Amino acid sequence: MARIGIIGSEGRMGQALRDAIAAAGHQLAGGVDRGEDVARLADGSDVLVDFSAPPALEGNLHAAIGAGIPILIGTTGLEAAHHAAIENAARAVPVLQTGNTSLGVTLLAHLVQEAAARLGPDWDIEIVEMHHRMKVDAPSGTAILLGEAAARGRGIDLASHTTSGRHGHTGARAAGAIGFAALRGGTVAGEHSVILAGDQERITLSHSAENRMIFAHGAVKGAAWLIGKPPARYSMAEVLGL
Amino acid sequence: MARIGIIGSEGRMGQALRDAIAAAGHQLAGGVDRGEDVARLADGSDVLVDFSAPPALEGNLHAAIGAGIPILIGTTGLEAAHHAAIENAARAVPVLQTGNTSLGVTLLAHLVQEAAARLGPDWDIEIVEMHHRMKVDAPSGTAILLGEAAARGRGIDLASHTTSGRHGHTGARAAGAIGFAALRGGTVAGEHSVILAGDQERITLSHSAENRMIFAHGAVKGAAWLIGKPPARYSMAEVLGL
Amino acid sequence: MARIGIIGSEGRMGQALRDAIAAAGHQLAGGVDRGEDVARLADGSDVLVDFSAPPALEGNLHAAIGAGIPILIGTTGLEAAHHAAIENAARAVPVLQTGNTSLGVTLLAHLVQEAAARLGPDWDIEIVEMHHRMKVDAPSGTAILLGEAAARGRGIDLASHTTSGRHGHTGARAAGAIGFAALRGGTVAGEHSVILAGDQERITLSHSAENRMIFAHGAVKGAAWLIGKPPARYSMAEVLGL
Amino acid sequence: MARIGIIGSEGRMGQALRDAIAAAGHQLAGGVDRGEDVARLADGSDVLVDFSAPPALEGNLHAAIGAGIPILIGTTGLEAAHHAAIENAARAVPVLQTGNTSLGVTLLAHLVQEAAARLGPDWDIEIVEMHHRMKVDAPSGTAILLGEAAARGRGIDLASHTTSGRHGHTGARAAGAIGFAALRGGTVAGEHSVILAGDQERITLSHSAENRMIFAHGAVKGAAWLIGKPPARYSMAEVLGL
Repeated sequence: MARIGIIGSEGRMGQALRDAIAAAGHQLAGGVDRGEDVARLADGSDVLVDFSAPPALEGNLHAAIGAGIPILIGTTGLEAAHHAAIENAARAVPVLQTGNTSLGVTLLAHLVQEAAARLGPDWDIEIVEMHHRMKVDAPSGTAILLGEAAARGRGIDLASHTTSGRHGHTGARAAGAIGFAALRGGTVAGEHSVILAGDQERITLSHSAENRMIFAHGAVKGAAWLIGKPPARYSMAEVLGL
Repeated sequence: MARIGIIGSEGRMGQALRDAIAAAGHQLAGGVDRGEDVARLADGSDVLVDFSAPPALEGNLHAAIGAGIPILIGTTGLEAAHHAAIENAARAVPVLQTGNTSLGVTLLAHLVQEAAARLGPDWDIEIVEMHHRMKVDAPSGTAILLGEAAARGRGIDLASHTTSGRHGHTGARAAGAIGFAALRGGTVAGEHSVILAGDQERITLSHSAENRMIFAHGAVKGAAWLIGKPPARYSMAEVLGL
Repeated sequence: MARIGIIGSEGRMGQALRDAIAAAGHQLAGGVDRGEDVARLADGSDVLVDFSAPPALEGNLHAAIGAGIPILIGTTGLEAAHHAAIENAARAVPVLQTGNTSLGVTLLAHLVQEAAARLGPDWDIEIVEMHHRMKVDAPSGTAILLGEAAARGRGIDLASHTTSGRHGHTGARAAGAIGFAALRGGTVAGEHSVILAGDQERITLSHSAENRMIFAHGAVKGAAWLIGKPPARYSMAEVLGL
Repeated sequence: MARIGIIGSEGRMGQALRDAIAAAGHQLAGGVDRGEDVARLADGSDVLVDFSAPPALEGNLHAAIGAGIPILIGTTGLEAAHHAAIENAARAVPVLQTGNTSLGVTLLAHLVQEAAARLGPDWDIEIVEMHHRMKVDAPSGTAILLGEAAARGRGIDLASHTTSGRHGHTGARAAGAIGFAALRGGTVAGEHSVILAGDQERITLSHSAENRMIFAHGAVKGAAWLIGKPPARYSMAEVLGL
């Protein structure tokens, strides 16, 4: 039984994490939100789970290092500076950062990498996702995670091959591009499709989440797995043995 | 048997039109391309079919008026000035302009209008389309046609409610928005889905074209239907009696 | 604010109805289950909602008639004798019986009927549904409801045109058939697609339910709508003004 | 440049093979149909491609052995005796038998095996396919090929775990079953989806063929690859290096 501390405990994901911690038989060490005392939470926890917001990331990493405990980061919208801070922290404590904590998406990313590697650049890759009407950024962290898997399979850099949000006179598709499109509406928990479109045939690899509990269950599984690991940066694929 | 003149006869759509004219038992009056003599083609035709490009539109309308024959316009990428020219021409001859000449898409637009009207603004509307890698604009003319049907059903103006190509920090979905997303890849002839996303449920209305012959067959059917009609602006819905 | 009485109040649908009554600002008049006093419940209610089982139907109708209040029946598995009893009761009080109370499915059936009528018998109709692994019959009641809408649109009888569960050497597709296929797995709340497949093009009309609350919300909406209506047999389509 | 002989040359697949042989720069050695002289065709060919019918299989294998050349078999509907004959022939010449010669389906089968292996038996597997209205058997050979990949991934036998064509009172889903559903309509060239449905999430792996040329291109690629290989039974996966 692990004592798990939640950073970002008031939102819908925070509530889902509480339920998942209970369902897995672990103990809720406590929860903090905007500006509250993360260091104290860390002191009473075996591992932290962070679903807050990018500006809080650095403080959260410091708290984990201070307490000498691992941290799982599910916050989306991270930029280069955040990733640099994660790399630094991962020298001191185990850090798992991921755009999606579900078992299904983690496997999907593995399949996408394999498909992109085998089919080669003649097959165009498009990633389309749909989320509820309250989501504020696009594409989703999971879509980017899938794009990174595709880029890895092809041996290219994602950032320099991204085409996102096509509109207007775009010209023909750029060779080697990985395209992103974002749909928003209703209460959709999260749907992602990676389309590999070749000459006269198409492969589509999709994931559909019925509700956000799958992310909470996966996050709790990942957090418990981190306890006792040596300091390093980890991914969900390692949690699942992929 | 009608004599049908093709403007934009060299492209892939031009070839498809030739095949469809033969299949329907009509006669090909001839075909012209960039800068060729449309007026002469019009004189030998009972109706013109225009799948060329926006800059040629005005000349093509003049040729139809000069010869006193109808014209069907399938060119996409039209702007306000083009639509004004079409309105003018439609006082002299029958003009049918459409973003999509297929039977299926025409019916789909009818269903989308009905669904949007019945469900009301609590259901978010998203339109996603996929086309081959050579397509140069986004969203497709057909996607816009479907968006117009949705806007008509809701009694709103499409232009002021369009969200197209989401990317970056978008904020929550604008109430009443009609969203567009465009996918490009492979050799896809054309797929369109209109998603109406409500609380905990979704309706999706889709059309899939296996190849572009369906557009040619519909265009020939529409062109033949125009012959003998009084001057006015028509749509494919009228051809199909919707 | 209406006082709504629930027959079949203990099951998962009963709990969902309680939540939906509260969410809509109505009042729960009470709930009964196997063998309990429906007449007393009816006396304290403005309308009854019945999601119990076919053997209880006749007693429930009598209770509604005795109290002079409307009744909405969502029980599935009804046979000819049940429908005759409903017809009788509908001379005394308003009765609404339906295989699916969701707003989205009701609209979808309306669109399917329209599409089937407009496209004609050259377009093959297939209905595919997916439900969770515990569902014990196939096709679903909602799939049959959609098939009936398609048959009505074509002016044919569904029973004599049904092909369900293709397997083995089937021969070519029977002209005019309406096909059914059932998928089962996981925890899927309910997905239905009606495919109309023509030459080189396809229209697909789909509904996806995220969870069963949508059925409860629709039932409560339908029940409230029934209050004050003249005695007659009603359907969900009328609740929605279709 | 290889000399390729076609068995079953008159059908739609035969014509597609002729086009694909020309497109790949190979030479058509000739074609035979029902009852014609396969032995003579084999003598003038470097490899045979058989898309005829199961009763002709044994004779075709003999012709390949007699001429000492490889044979690719794309015929569907094979039974145990046919597979035994193939095993025998593969001791004398290279034999590649497959339910689907497309690059995309071959890769999809590889991904399905991987997903089934990783996710384990808690995820229910369903396979749904759609083909044109003239197809006479169900499920398709490709659906079975995908089912075999799933069964291999799980380490089970497909035949004893198949549920195909659900209809009527089925009871709850059998644990560990692999389900099949077949849709028929219009002119659909071939669409297959493998759904892995877990608790609250689903992965769907799909392939869509725009037309049957992809099967012809893959068959020609496979046939050319067979030339010079040692006698053995091969699969498309080996052609693609999977």
